Amino acid sequence: MRLDNVTVVLHEPRYPENIGAAARACRNMGARGLVAVRPRNPDREKMLKMATHEAADLVEAMPILDSLDEALAPFQHVVGTTARTGRHRRPTDTPRGLARGLAPVLARNRVALLFGSEKWGLSNAALARCQSLVTIPTAGFSSVNLAQSVMILLYELRLADGDAAPPLPRLADQRELEGLFAHLAELFEAVGFIHPESPEHWMANVRRFVGRLQLQAREVRLARGFCRQVLWALGRSGEGRREAAGGR
Amino acid sequence: MRLDNVTVVLHEPRYPENIGAAARACRNMGARGLVAVRPRNPDREKMLKMATHEAADLVEAMPILDSLDEALAPFQHVVGTTARTGRHRRPTDTPRGLARGLAPVLARNRVALLFGSEKWGLSNAALARCQSLVTIPTAGFSSVNLAQSVMILLYELRLADGDAAPPLPRLADQRELEGLFAHLAELFEAVGFIHPESPEHWMANVRRFVGRLQLQAREVRLARGFCRQVLWALGRSGEGRREAAGGR
Repeated sequence: MRLDNVTVVLHEPRYPENIGAAARACRNMGARGLVAVRPRNPDREKMLKMATHEAADLVEAMPILDSLDEALAPFQHVVGTTARTGRHRRPTDTPRGLARGLAPVLARNRVALLFGSEKWGLSNAALARCQSLVTIPTAGFSSVNLAQSVMILLYELRLADGDAAPPLPRLADQRELEGLFAHLAELFEAVGFIHPESPEHWMANVRRFVGRLQLQAREVRLARGFCRQVLWALGRSGEGRREAAGGR
Repeated sequence: MRLDNVTVVLHEPRYPENIGAAARACRNMGARGLVAVRPRNPDREKMLKMATHEAADLVEAMPILDSLDEALAPFQHVVGTTARTGRHRRPTDTPRGLARGLAPVLARNRVALLFGSEKWGLSNAALARCQSLVTIPTAGFSSVNLAQSVMILLYELRLADGDAAPPLPRLADQRELEGLFAHLAELFEAVGFIHPESPEHWMANVRRFVGRLQLQAREVRLARGFCRQVLWALGRSGEGRREAAGGR
């Protein structure tokens, strides 16, 4: 499968060598490139050494961003990678199962593979941003080197058969979904469905559910229109309060 | 599949960090361990840093040898890893195909995964020692980081289904096979079948053919007995000339 639509997003990586080795893996497997969010040590020299000459351009072109929201905004599907640490209870897929499931998505949608820091993995807040989770099966010692995890996922995606299932249409991206979540949080709060001071836990469930739906952009617009209508009927301005809503 | 019978053999690796990262991959996937042949820089500290605490014992226990023959002697099957460089003409398998084919071998036999140096890969002499070859499929830039190559092969072996085919019995190991090749080379030379001054090219074909046969130890003994008998009939001592034979 061609990986032009696959981008590796490294969230708070600690070691520039791993960023460089991940860039090399991207070039090996034909992925589009990578993005780093708040790398602890953005030492380009160390990155370039591991990237080798062949992937130097991926390192040079790599955006270094301050915000995970900004990094994920353009993607229709975000895959989170986790080790078997037991910190989260969501079911996770195998790399091979994930690759099979993503094949129809990849034809017309951009996918982010999101990796956490070498030390801590992905935070719960970052995991909540993911439409699906994947865990590399291991023999016991479950902590796989960051760049090796990148390689295994890209390798499985590359081997997956893009012709196996009909391609899915263009889905809503993370910016559109975040707008929907903000609207939903506002609506839930307005009708007393979630507590305004601790909305995150409940919204994590909503995110998970919506993530599975693979909504298209026009479906998200429809749902937001519905939210707006209900909020209007409740005598509140949907526009005025969105920024203050808890779901962001 | 359990990987107790799988050992990673690194031939002339250049960077101790890659040795350490390979050790970590062995621990992640449950492989038995690793062996280094003439590492350029056997810096244990750098190895241990990449191995992490969890795989430190694999680095500590790793034999560092001067001879590839010695390193490969205990194994019944040797898999060579090559990039698509075009330097060799032998057909190579994919990691997944290899894993499927090795599953019945692994139950009762020890397998070496042989990797060449980061810069040059495996020499022709080292490739001639391999019963099968494997190449990781890539998008164009075919040079995969050494430790990442180790990880992909171990990952595929681990996922292969050991119950898919009936297990193969214990096969001849490399020491027994090398004895057979020496006998064959002597015999071929005695009957004028190969030129005594350039036997290597022809013997490479013999090695390839015998490698595919998956001979058992008693079959190797039988074949060597036949060689000895013919050499005796030709009026030569099979014992006396074996050390001088060209096939070693």
